[in-house]
Amino acid sequence: MTLQTIAFEKREQLKQKPNSDQLGFGKYFTDHMFLMDYDEQKDWHNPRIVPYQSISVDPSAMIFHYGQTVFEGLKAYRTEDDQILLFRPENNMKRLNQSSKRMSIPEIDEEEVLHYLQQLIAIEQDWVPSAEGTSLYIRPVVIATDPNLSVEPSKTYTFMIILSPVGSYYPQGIKPVSIRVEQQYTRAVKGGTGTAKTAANYSGAYKAQEKATEQGLSQVLWLDGIEKKYIEEVGSMNVFFKIDGEVITPELNGSILEGITRKSTIELLNHWGIPVKEQKISMAELHAYYHNGKLEEAFGTGTAAVISPIGELIWENEKLVINEGQIGEVAKKLYDTITGIQTGKVKDRYGWTVEAASKTMNTSPSL
Amino acid sequence: MTLQTIAFEKREQLKQKPNSDQLGFGKYFTDHMFLMDYDEQKDWHNPRIVPYQSISVDPSAMIFHYGQTVFEGLKAYRTEDDQILLFRPENNMKRLNQSSKRMSIPEIDEEEVLHYLQQLIAIEQDWVPSAEGTSLYIRPVVIATDPNLSVEPSKTYTFMIILSPVGSYYPQGIKPVSIRVEQQYTRAVKGGTGTAKTAANYSGAYKAQEKATEQGLSQVLWLDGIEKKYIEEVGSMNVFFKIDGEVITPELNGSILEGITRKSTIELLNHWGIPVKEQKISMAELHAYYHNGKLEEAFGTGTAAVISPIGELIWENEKLVINEGQIGEVAKKLYDTITGIQTGKVKDRYGWTVEAASKTMNTSPSL
Repeated sequence: MTLQTIAFEKREQLKQKPNSDQLGFGKYFTDHMFLMDYDEQKDWHNPRIVPYQSISVDPSAMIFHYGQTVFEGLKAYRTEDDQILLFRPENNMKRLNQSSKRMSIPEIDEEEVLHYLQQLIAIEQDWVPSAEGTSLYIRPVVIATDPNLSVEPSKTYTFMIILSPVGSYYPQGIKPVSIRVEQQYTRAVKGGTGTAKTAANYSGAYKAQEKATEQGLSQVLWLDGIEKKYIEEVGSMNVFFKIDGEVITPELNGSILEGITRKSTIELLNHWGIPVKEQKISMAELHAYYHNGKLEEAFGTGTAAVISPIGELIWENEKLVINEGQIGEVAKKLYDTITGIQTGKVKDRYGWTVEAASKTMNTSPSL
Repeated sequence: MTLQTIAFEKREQLKQKPNSDQLGFGKYFTDHMFLMDYDEQKDWHNPRIVPYQSISVDPSAMIFHYGQTVFEGLKAYRTEDDQILLFRPENNMKRLNQSSKRMSIPEIDEEEVLHYLQQLIAIEQDWVPSAEGTSLYIRPVVIATDPNLSVEPSKTYTFMIILSPVGSYYPQGIKPVSIRVEQQYTRAVKGGTGTAKTAANYSGAYKAQEKATEQGLSQVLWLDGIEKKYIEEVGSMNVFFKIDGEVITPELNGSILEGITRKSTIELLNHWGIPVKEQKISMAELHAYYHNGKLEEAFGTGTAAVISPIGELIWENEKLVINEGQIGEVAKKLYDTITGIQTGKVKDRYGWTVEAASKTMNTSPSL
C-alpha cells in the first residue's frame, strides 16, 4: 500500500448535530465527505476530504443512464469508553472490489481506502452518536461519470464516502417482523448482478415491497428467479432458519449477496457448536417443517438491523407464525453477541473490530 | 392535456457544431436541455429549457445508490426538404411510463412531454444533421433525487431531455455483424426489470460484452435467464430470424424489451404479407434450422442501428454463418423502408412520422 497524500478542506461553519432520537436512517449527513477520482491515465487519484456538498454531474454522465455503480454499507460504533469501532471493515472493502469486478468498474486499493475512511472518521468522530442502538452509517459508493451515451464501461469514475448518524433500528426494543413471500417479482437470477452490491438490485424490488406494505407487512422474502421455489433473501438481508436444532441458510448460489453479518453469524454458530448448514431450501420444505413443528426460528441478518427476527411468513394465503411470534433464543444470542462486540460491551475474541478513531486522537490529523 | 408555461433561458454563447463525420454516438450535446421536477405536492412542475449544463446532485441522492431511473431513446431526422421528423414518438412516451410503473416512478403526461420535446427541438433545429445516416438522438431520462439512503421510492425526481447529434451507424455501408451467444451471464429474467428501459439492464451486461469483444465479436445474443435455452435479445436490440420463408421473433415474455423498431418491423412484414410470428425459439431449434438449410436471415432491430443484419452466430464452439455473411433481402427491405420513412424519402403510409419542427418555424418560439 502506498498512501497518496490526502487533501483536507475543512468546512468553515460546522452543522448543528441532530438529537439522537431524531436520527432515523440516512437522513442526516456529517460535515465532510471523502472523494477520489479515476481516469485511465492517473488510475485512482486526488483523494481528498472536503465539506459535504452537492456534486456537479453532466446530464449525460453514465451513472444516470446505465447504472454502472457499486456501493457498500458499514457502521462505526461508539463504545462506553469513547472508542470508535468498525466491524470487519476489510470485508466491506473486499466486497466492494468483488462488486466492481462484476460491474466492470476499476478496483480500489482496499487497505488504502480503509485508511482514508479512518481519517475521515477521525475528523468526523463527534458525529458518532452514543445512545443505545445508534451508530454512524458509512456509505462508500463508486459512480460512472463519463459524459457519453455509449452503452459501454465508463473511462472515468468518482468514489465517494459519505457518513450519516443513524438511530436505533429497534427504538421500541427488538420486535419480530411479518414478511410476505413474493411469488411474482424477482430480485436476481444466476448470471445477473445479485451477488454484487449495485443499484440494479434495489429499486427493482420496490414493486414487491409495495405489495407487502399494502398488506401491512414489513418486508419481502425473495425466492429464486428460476423456479420460484428456493428461498434466497429477505428484503435486503440474508435469511436463516432454525429447524430441528440445526440452523440453515441458503447457499451462495450466484444470485445471493454475501453478507458480512451472514458470515459472522455462521462463524459464531460454529464457535458455539450449533450446527449450521449453507444449502438450498425451498419454501415447500420450510412449509413442511413448519407443519411438523420443526421450524423453531427464522431471522434476517444485515448491517442495518444486525439480526431481524421473523415472527410471521405469509405465503400465498397462509400465515406461518414462527416461535409464537417471539424472538428465538439463537437470534437473541446472535443479536446480543454481535451488537455487543460492535459496541465493545462483549469481548471481541475474533479480532472483528478495528479502531476507527478515538476521542484522544488529534482531531486535525496531519493530512 | 393542460400545458404548463415553459420557461426558456437561452445560452449566451452558442457552441460550435461538430462536423458530421466526427459525430459518433452520444459524444456531443446541443446548446440547451429540457428539465422538469417532481415532488409530492406539486406533481411534475417547472418545465424549462435551459443551457445544457451539469446539474448539482447531493451525494446521497437515491439515483447514485439504488438505481431508480428510467430512460428513452429516439431520433429526429432531417428530410431533404428540411423538415424535421420524429418516428412514432408517442410510443416512446408510452413506454417511458410503462418503465416508470415498473420502477415505482411517477408517470408523466405523455402528450405534454412530447409537446415540450417538440419545443426543445424547434430551438435546437440547427443541430439536426443532414448527412446520410445522421440524426439527432433524443434521450429523455428520469432520475430519483431524494437525499436519503432509505431503500424506498424517492419522493422527488428530475426529468431531463438531452439531445446529441449522432453519426451514421454504418459509415462504411450496412454490414452484417458477428455475435456471441452468451451462456453464462443473464440480462434479465421474468419478474425482474427486463421489460423496462432502466439502468439496471445495461451495465450488468458489460461483462458479457467484454467476453464478446475479446473474441473480436461485436455483440451478445442473450438467452433466457431461467433455462438458458430460449433466445431473447441481441445486445440492446430485439432479434428476428427468417426461417423457411417465415419470420420469427421471440415473444414478449416478461423479460424482453418491447422495441418500437421491433413493433414497426412486425407491422411492415404484416403489410407486405410476409408471415411473422412472435413465439418462443430456442438456440437448439435455431441450430437445427441452420443445419437443415432453413435459417435464411437473422437481424437485430433497434433505434440506434434500425436494422442490424447478423452474419455470424458463435454458439459454444460452433460458428453459424448466416446467408453467407451477407445482408438478407427482408432485412434490406426493412432497413430501406424504415430509414426511408424516417427521413421522408419513402412515403409514410402508416402515419408513423410526426413533424418535430421545420426550418420555416420561428426559431424563438413564444415560450
